[in-house]
Amino acid sequence: MGDRLKILVIHGPNINLLGTREPGIYGNLTLEEVDNKIKTAASDFDIEVSIYQSNNEGDIIDVIQKKRDYNGLVINPAAYTHTSVAIYDAIIACKIPAVEVHISNIHGRESFRKNSLIAPSCVGQISGFGYYSYILGLQAIIDYIKNS
Amino acid sequence: MGDRLKILVIHGPNINLLGTREPGIYGNLTLEEVDNKIKTAASDFDIEVSIYQSNNEGDIIDVIQKKRDYNGLVINPAAYTHTSVAIYDAIIACKIPAVEVHISNIHGRESFRKNSLIAPSCVGQISGFGYYSYILGLQAIIDYIKNS
Amino acid sequence: MGDRLKILVIHGPNINLLGTREPGIYGNLTLEEVDNKIKTAASDFDIEVSIYQSNNEGDIIDVIQKKRDYNGLVINPAAYTHTSVAIYDAIIACKIPAVEVHISNIHGRESFRKNSLIAPSCVGQISGFGYYSYILGLQAIIDYIKNS
Amino acid sequence: MGDRLKILVIHGPNINLLGTREPGIYGNLTLEEVDNKIKTAASDFDIEVSIYQSNNEGDIIDVIQKKRDYNGLVINPAAYTHTSVAIYDAIIACKIPAVEVHISNIHGRESFRKNSLIAPSCVGQISGFGYYSYILGLQAIIDYIKNS
Amino acid sequence: MGDRLKILVIHGPNINLLGTREPGIYGNLTLEEVDNKIKTAASDFDIEVSIYQSNNEGDIIDVIQKKRDYNGLVINPAAYTHTSVAIYDAIIACKIPAVEVHISNIHGRESFRKNSLIAPSCVGQISGFGYYSYILGLQAIIDYIKNS
Amino acid sequence: MGDRLKILVIHGPNINLLGTREPGIYGNLTLEEVDNKIKTAASDFDIEVSIYQSNNEGDIIDVIQKKRDYNGLVINPAAYTHTSVAIYDAIIACKIPAVEVHISNIHGRESFRKNSLIAPSCVGQISGFGYYSYILGLQAIIDYIKNS
Amino acid sequence: MGDRLKILVIHGPNINLLGTREPGIYGNLTLEEVDNKIKTAASDFDIEVSIYQSNNEGDIIDVIQKKRDYNGLVINPAAYTHTSVAIYDAIIACKIPAVEVHISNIHGRESFRKNSLIAPSCVGQISGFGYYSYILGLQAIIDYIKNS
Amino acid sequence: MGDRLKILVIHGPNINLLGTREPGIYGNLTLEEVDNKIKTAASDFDIEVSIYQSNNEGDIIDVIQKKRDYNGLVINPAAYTHTSVAIYDAIIACKIPAVEVHISNIHGRESFRKNSLIAPSCVGQISGFGYYSYILGLQAIIDYIKNS
Amino acid sequence: MGDRLKILVIHGPNINLLGTREPGIYGNLTLEEVDNKIKTAASDFDIEVSIYQSNNEGDIIDVIQKKRDYNGLVINPAAYTHTSVAIYDAIIACKIPAVEVHISNIHGRESFRKNSLIAPSCVGQISGFGYYSYILGLQAIIDYIKNS
Amino acid sequence: MGDRLKILVIHGPNINLLGTREPGIYGNLTLEEVDNKIKTAASDFDIEVSIYQSNNEGDIIDVIQKKRDYNGLVINPAAYTHTSVAIYDAIIACKIPAVEVHISNIHGRESFRKNSLIAPSCVGQISGFGYYSYILGLQAIIDYIKNS
Amino acid sequence: MGDRLKILVIHGPNINLLGTREPGIYGNLTLEEVDNKIKTAASDFDIEVSIYQSNNEGDIIDVIQKKRDYNGLVINPAAYTHTSVAIYDAIIACKIPAVEVHISNIHGRESFRKNSLIAPSCVGQISGFGYYSYILGLQAIIDYIKNS
Amino acid sequence: MGDRLKILVIHGPNINLLGTREPGIYGNLTLEEVDNKIKTAASDFDIEVSIYQSNNEGDIIDVIQKKRDYNGLVINPAAYTHTSVAIYDAIIACKIPAVEVHISNIHGRESFRKNSLIAPSCVGQISGFGYYSYILGLQAIIDYIKNS
Repeated sequence: MGDRLKILVIHGPNINLLGTREPGIYGNLTLEEVDNKIKTAASDFDIEVSIYQSNNEGDIIDVIQKKRDYNGLVINPAAYTHTSVAIYDAIIACKIPAVEVHISNIHGRESFRKNSLIAPSCVGQISGFGYYSYILGLQAIIDYIKNS
Repeated sequence: MGDRLKILVIHGPNINLLGTREPGIYGNLTLEEVDNKIKTAASDFDIEVSIYQSNNEGDIIDVIQKKRDYNGLVINPAAYTHTSVAIYDAIIACKIPAVEVHISNIHGRESFRKNSLIAPSCVGQISGFGYYSYILGLQAIIDYIKNS
Repeated sequence: MGDRLKILVIHGPNINLLGTREPGIYGNLTLEEVDNKIKTAASDFDIEVSIYQSNNEGDIIDVIQKKRDYNGLVINPAAYTHTSVAIYDAIIACKIPAVEVHISNIHGRESFRKNSLIAPSCVGQISGFGYYSYILGLQAIIDYIKNS
Repeated sequence: MGDRLKILVIHGPNINLLGTREPGIYGNLTLEEVDNKIKTAASDFDIEVSIYQSNNEGDIIDVIQKKRDYNGLVINPAAYTHTSVAIYDAIIACKIPAVEVHISNIHGRESFRKNSLIAPSCVGQISGFGYYSYILGLQAIIDYIKNS
Repeated sequence: MGDRLKILVIHGPNINLLGTREPGIYGNLTLEEVDNKIKTAASDFDIEVSIYQSNNEGDIIDVIQKKRDYNGLVINPAAYTHTSVAIYDAIIACKIPAVEVHISNIHGRESFRKNSLIAPSCVGQISGFGYYSYILGLQAIIDYIKNS
Repeated sequence: MGDRLKILVIHGPNINLLGTREPGIYGNLTLEEVDNKIKTAASDFDIEVSIYQSNNEGDIIDVIQKKRDYNGLVINPAAYTHTSVAIYDAIIACKIPAVEVHISNIHGRESFRKNSLIAPSCVGQISGFGYYSYILGLQAIIDYIKNS
Repeated sequence: MGDRLKILVIHGPNINLLGTREPGIYGNLTLEEVDNKIKTAASDFDIEVSIYQSNNEGDIIDVIQKKRDYNGLVINPAAYTHTSVAIYDAIIACKIPAVEVHISNIHGRESFRKNSLIAPSCVGQISGFGYYSYILGLQAIIDYIKNS
Repeated sequence: MGDRLKILVIHGPNINLLGTREPGIYGNLTLEEVDNKIKTAASDFDIEVSIYQSNNEGDIIDVIQKKRDYNGLVINPAAYTHTSVAIYDAIIACKIPAVEVHISNIHGRESFRKNSLIAPSCVGQISGFGYYSYILGLQAIIDYIKNS
Repeated sequence: MGDRLKILVIHGPNINLLGTREPGIYGNLTLEEVDNKIKTAASDFDIEVSIYQSNNEGDIIDVIQKKRDYNGLVINPAAYTHTSVAIYDAIIACKIPAVEVHISNIHGRESFRKNSLIAPSCVGQISGFGYYSYILGLQAIIDYIKNS
Repeated sequence: MGDRLKILVIHGPNINLLGTREPGIYGNLTLEEVDNKIKTAASDFDIEVSIYQSNNEGDIIDVIQKKRDYNGLVINPAAYTHTSVAIYDAIIACKIPAVEVHISNIHGRESFRKNSLIAPSCVGQISGFGYYSYILGLQAIIDYIKNS
Repeated sequence: MGDRLKILVIHGPNINLLGTREPGIYGNLTLEEVDNKIKTAASDFDIEVSIYQSNNEGDIIDVIQKKRDYNGLVINPAAYTHTSVAIYDAIIACKIPAVEVHISNIHGRESFRKNSLIAPSCVGQISGFGYYSYILGLQAIIDYIKNS
Repeated sequence: MGDRLKILVIHGPNINLLGTREPGIYGNLTLEEVDNKIKTAASDFDIEVSIYQSNNEGDIIDVIQKKRDYNGLVINPAAYTHTSVAIYDAIIACKIPAVEVHISNIHGRESFRKNSLIAPSCVGQISGFGYYSYILGLQAIIDYIKNS
């Protein structure tokens, strides 16, 4: 178990309301159900995941810094995607390989949601597949780590 | 008393410095004095108010989420008016009827203060009447709730 | 009666079609019904109101100039909100305290409706509460006049 | 075999030069090798894929139209991502569920590469994982089709 | 000792990672080493310094408010330089003389780093001299306080 | 005759100077001659037309409101095309089917003439065919009414 | 028959999907049915039409060049309206009188659809009347040719 | 006297409030006093002037059209300077030589006051000299007429 | 003579080529002829003028500084109108009342010629009257000085 | 002859109409005459040229790819200069040294013609010298190849 | 020799540092060596050249004016390319045929280097070929003069 | 003394008017007094300074070039900060370490003063501390030189 990859999964602000929040856009699963999907996938992929949710930009940065020895990061920055230079800086500063994921297709919504300040600090971005964006994000970061 | 409307009132960053902060713009009342005005009005309107102030974007979101069973929200997002997509998302996600209020007339100040990221999540906006913006905000949200 | 505050209320273009115009946005009340609400409130507040509607930018300016000895102005500039520098200039030139009101929440509609050319000439702005925006506007201007 | 999902995979302009084109950005695999990866994955996923490459915007539209009875589309529009309204229109008009994929992280490159005209016509977008973006795209479209 | 000037020094988000974070841009000194440099300089200048680091916008505002009786502030807002109206408001509201400092030359980096939302609330800005920006900042604020 | 469609035709500002105004752009026919062409066509199409010209934005709105029981509107808003939100609002509020026409090709002139604030309130727009734009406009609105 | 006007009609990309493509916007007629409407009208107007559809920008230019001895052109550039300088150049270079037509009202849709790169090369533009835009376009070009 | 030049002088909206309107910007003279200055100058220059003031864009256009046989026009469009394409069109359509004048220096005020939509239709512009701008405007138009 | 006002007249770059330079825009008079017109007018107005031309931004600043005890400045900054912050600064720094003049109507030419960086440092601007702009400029500055 | 440099010359859309297309801008030579000039120059320079014209963006990319073993490319992208990211990508991907040429001076025409999307992929750009731009382009690419 | 064409060659600011200035961009030749290349070419072309370098915008204008009887101008405006309206005006005013040259490919560098204020005053522009841009410039201007 | 660092200090346009120029912004010290402060500091720091002031962009470039063997440069470009690409190029070309200083806080003034074209060529920028900005600039450049 000691040799398994350790991946940090971060949910940004308001993701804790999944299931009740605009289900037409974000789906019907609650955060707990999404986290179970993530944990099951982690088990399938034989990796270790640590999942964290916060509504607070500073707390998200703190967590990234504290877990910067993890092998990789899957982050859904939610609203902070569009406003946080600080999370961008944190990912760069920690040199942790990261994948940005979004439940909804941010490129097909209001124009202010198309621009990600965080994306340039990441290996890549996955957007639009509901909870499954996280599962794809796990696969992507595992593939990236194994081939770097 | 159990049937009275419950309204959450949120003061954003630096509102705790009222009275000393640029009185030419924000008036001479301290936050405590403003809160007393709000409580007196609440008593007059026969509603229950819960008042909260924070300098922290994440904490404001946490409070909105926790109190999302309240009947309505009167929020002065202060500086976060112009930078927080996350508070906008929180109000939408919590489906709580909200009124955005401002002490100063944000439409007559620096141009970066004219745009509110939060306004589209609210029923309406009241701006420019000093502490009285909060009292009008309470009336507006009560009127909205009763007629929805 | 001679000492009562005199407030001018102006309805801008197309407000005379209230009740038939996009009720989903502007509500079901006709202008006559809204005016009755305003008159009842004026009676409650023990003030005198003079109500005027025009589709014509120049006529609105004429009225503001003619009534510039009134104690205050509550104006819904409607479409002229976004295009009239001349009404802005009129309010400034007449030195009449003014409150801008809107039936719908202009900050939550098409982007060209978010910017008010007139707002900087006013004490404040109230937007989004249906006919009730006028009632709040009356209260706001009365409070402003009494405390200036 | 008749019941297997049929997925169209489209490579846009200059993708046929993979392996020789800026390997630091696009990787060392040739298009043939990438296509083999795709075919292997298709076999693993028990789906049928039809792969097409063209440097010609019109030809890409023709193919999408001809194959519009396919169950889904995985498309790397390459340079046309940023300039083709016509491919966007084709995907909408054909009502074929689509996933947009990119080999490089378009959100971390020149600013003109950040905007995708095509993304709003797609279920989602996957960007930055080399050839593996296609594999993730296949998974994403399969998941989408099975849950719609 | 009671008459010595008291200066608050604030390090913004990710500054705690100095030394490991992009040394080509931010230098090789750790935050502890930078703080020692600051303390030594403070001793040389015969002033008292209180040093604070946080990744959290709200906490930074809290500290500025709590220490607003200090004689001056030297602040490196880091990523919040470009996104925080709230810190700008806090400095104005607290009427504390402030100097904005940056380790790297923000005017020679990505264009989004050139604009400081905070600078207009400060006496001046010093940018580009590594840890030495803080030392110059201390000198600048001392000179300003003594000559105001 | 009672059952004939009734169409309102509005000429905006300065159209009364046709024939003398920049004939290279607007042609040699006077407004009277154009109106005769319109009347002849109306007779051919067996419809009733009411023609109105004004230089005044407010008057144009008044006329649209008064004639809002007409079956359709053919409007050349001239200069108000580019500046009048109020005429846009009037057409929407009156729910009258409208066709916007222009004598010159507004899409081939100064850039400020390319954007029509009014077009989104209309069924369609016809631009560039001299007086014949009105005749085509009549045909278009008749066709629209008959097929709605 | 030899003296009849010869008019080239061009349908741009995705127009071949008419009838199935977003009928709410583009109507229920198929391209074959629209072409029959055009042919019937041509017969009524005693002109000769040659109709061409392509999804390919280059092919459209080729056709315009080959048919540049025709008396006129009626073109629906569809998506290329907004992206093709080359079709604009082709119309100018061929000196063929042209009318730009659109099935939907492009001035009332997404903002990127409002701007036509091609319009300045044309006599005029007709937008918003379903298949009938083509019929009006034929009339407009015939009128233009006869009066030039 | 019959051979004297006839010059039309137009004052735009809110100019009738001169003397009371922001005297720091517009000076202390009332409109009547300014008109007397203009009439005295006209007498000195041996020309005939007709002076007109209106708050109404349409009325201003009407007057320009009615007096288009005058030898020249001196116009202070006031707020309509920045919003009226229709007055620009009127001056062009009437082919009347015109000079645009402003009491205040519009190039040194709010940025929206710097742009004149009307200037390109005029011979020239004079801005910033109080009532004396009108006197200079008269001289300029006389000089222009005599030398054309 | 000692009490006569002393006015500095500055011609900016390329004004020395008057008469040969685009006479359709700048007229047929040579600079020498224009200067004679200015001197004659100065004699008529009983003032003293000092005239200076340079193609060099720095030299123009030097002259303004050296002659800053003059009573006023009439300056045609020519191309430097649009690019020189330094001349703007010089006029402000020297506290010399200034009038900006232009031979052609800069508000009716290429858009880059509409914006004057220098205008906000001047009392006013006169544009479009050929050499006569200078004569009007002299009158304007004399009037300004006498009434300040 | 086998060791002679091989240069690919590409003419973009509508260049095949040279001689008839706006001769005031593009000159009187036909494409055949221009090609003869190019061939004569090639003979003089002792190089081999292959000349290709297409109206089709995709075909141009195909040709660049097929001839990517040539020593150099002289390309007049015509209208695609301003709209084709794909040709830019093709030149980069093929690592073929390229010179961009234009018959007219694109920097002195409509503003949309000033920006070249393709230029950054080329060694340099030559614009404005009629057919002679091609000859200079050949010289430039030869000089570049010999000195690289 | 008297009949030989006389061409003025101007080097703008900092070109005198060639050879030491960023050789990766500007090459290794010193200005003296470049000038020798130019003189040799002039001899080959049997023309007379006069070469001038200055760091001063005004001096460059002076030289263009003084040498305006020359047959042509080859100018590398260097940094003034992007900031000097005055040099643009000088070339226009002097009616001297000019070619703008650049050592580096300005269209492939920082975005502020892509726009040339001077280009519209020139016959054409040559950019990106090191010292050889000057040689091509000489050829281009000779060809232009001989064929005008 | 021969081993002392040699620092060039440059004052840009209008700095020679210090003391009389807007003292509220630039302070009461004359340039001579500021220069004495600089010389005293230089003596304290045991370095050699050469001080130069010019209103002329070209002369400033000449001086930088002539003194490019100095160890460092402290430059207050004043108005040229915002308009001079040529000074930026000069600093880069001379490879002289430079510090940009400003007397006033350019980040808190008019928006056109916030952007420095020169800053990216410098080690850093110091802005807002009156004459003391120069002293801090000397310290900064000395520290930079000693640690490079």
